[in-house]
Amino acid sequence: MAYDPNNIFARILRGEAPAHVVLDEAECMAFMDVMPMSPGHTLVIPREPAENLFALPAERLGPLAVATQRVARAVRDVFAPAGVSVRQLNGGAAGQSVFHIHFHVIPHYAGQALDTKQRLAEPRVLAQQATKLRAALAGER
Amino acid sequence: MAYDPNNIFARILRGEAPAHVVLDEAECMAFMDVMPMSPGHTLVIPREPAENLFALPAERLGPLAVATQRVARAVRDVFAPAGVSVRQLNGGAAGQSVFHIHFHVIPHYAGQALDTKQRLAEPRVLAQQATKLRAALAGER
Repeated sequence: MAYDPNNIFARILRGEAPAHVVLDEAECMAFMDVMPMSPGHTLVIPREPAENLFALPAERLGPLAVATQRVARAVRDVFAPAGVSVRQLNGGAAGQSVFHIHFHVIPHYAGQALDTKQRLAEPRVLAQQATKLRAALAGER
Repeated sequence: MAYDPNNIFARILRGEAPAHVVLDEAECMAFMDVMPMSPGHTLVIPREPAENLFALPAERLGPLAVATQRVARAVRDVFAPAGVSVRQLNGGAAGQSVFHIHFHVIPHYAGQALDTKQRLAEPRVLAQQATKLRAALAGER
């Protein structure tokens, strides 16, 4: 499949679509997932227009992984979940729904299963979460 | 939690426990998951003794991510699944069961749900799969 330059993440990267932005740097962006599987679910993407892991040049993957690590640490520090999973899905059969490579950072809370119903979260709540994550990232060592 | 130097992956790294090895390099190893969620499920680990994503130095993460990308490509080429997911779990609440950081590379086949029953696969089958993946990695450009 060819990369679609009008996918929603490409539009967010160009500032044409809104997002609750957590990180906005030279290589990568991070923002809240609008259909979170748990409170604090964040997505990390490269600026590189790559459909999936197979299409991303290896030299772009390291910076993306490190940005994901930083976001995961911020998610841990802000939301204090019992665990954090990182997921990167390639192909519709694996659950990929936006065809610009992204890493999911998903907090897991004790006794709470992930929400797989794909329900839109309240923008006000996402905005508050993004503010907290930006503050945590600004305070990184 | 302190890193346990006798966890099963540390023992595999030291050659004290067996594994169906796919990749064995300076920074990273990859081997078949003995309780695969689907045929071809492979694990990628760094040699660095780090419990999870939070404990891994950022400079070790890039090489681990690139090794994971190479293994994912080999899994795609050998098993021709409909999709591939990459998962990295931190904390028991997120599903982590071995406390040495690892990336799961999981093929998804059309119409087949992942097997979450944690059943041991036949060693003969895992050995055959590892042989195919090693051949694919040996033929990388």
